[in-house]
Amino acid sequence: MNNIFAALPDNLDSEVFEKLVDSDNITVERIVSKGHTSPESGWYDPEKHEWVMVLKGEAKLTFESAPQVHLKEGDYINIPAHTRHRVCWTPEHQETIWLAIHY
Amino acid sequence: MNNIFAALPDNLDSEVFEKLVDSDNITVERIVSKGHTSPESGWYDPEKHEWVMVLKGEAKLTFESAPQVHLKEGDYINIPAHTRHRVCWTPEHQETIWLAIHY
Repeated sequence: MNNIFAALPDNLDSEVFEKLVDSDNITVERIVSKGHTSPESGWYDPEKHEWVMVLKGEAKLTFESAPQVHLKEGDYINIPAHTRHRVCWTPEHQETIWLAIHY
Repeated sequence: MNNIFAALPDNLDSEVFEKLVDSDNITVERIVSKGHTSPESGWYDPEKHEWVMVLKGEAKLTFESAPQVHLKEGDYINIPAHTRHRVCWTPEHQETIWLAIHY
């Protein structure tokens, strides 16, 4: 048993990705952001579908072909494969903790 | 976009399971419990692996072959396929909200 809010990384110079489940068909990861945007240039254009939820903090996601969304605690969104998107804002004064399922 | 804490079911006479993702390889669901134990008799003995997290409330899980665990907010655990287990306690005075990934 572990806690998703515990053992936050000391060094948040860049976003920190930690795999919680890594199986043949899915990856589950915790992402910790603090004022970061990502990727640093261009778009994410993932091969897999991604279901993502903000568990703490908040974030704004921009899409190439859809309106921006502002995710707050408990908000989740499903991002189909090859939907170009990026994280355009996370707050600088606190950690934002995400759960992401790549499937 | 939806919120995991919103639109809680009015009727919690029994646990409520809602599928958030239902694809070929995984199912993601929200489970809302309130004083329930489950299954009502016997053990869960799932075909798939299950990763489960308590997002609100708390719960105790009993295993046939491992110590009981008491999950509080943010606690998560991976339960391999065919690990017999059951929910032996959730509080009666508040909802417990789970995220479960079957993979």
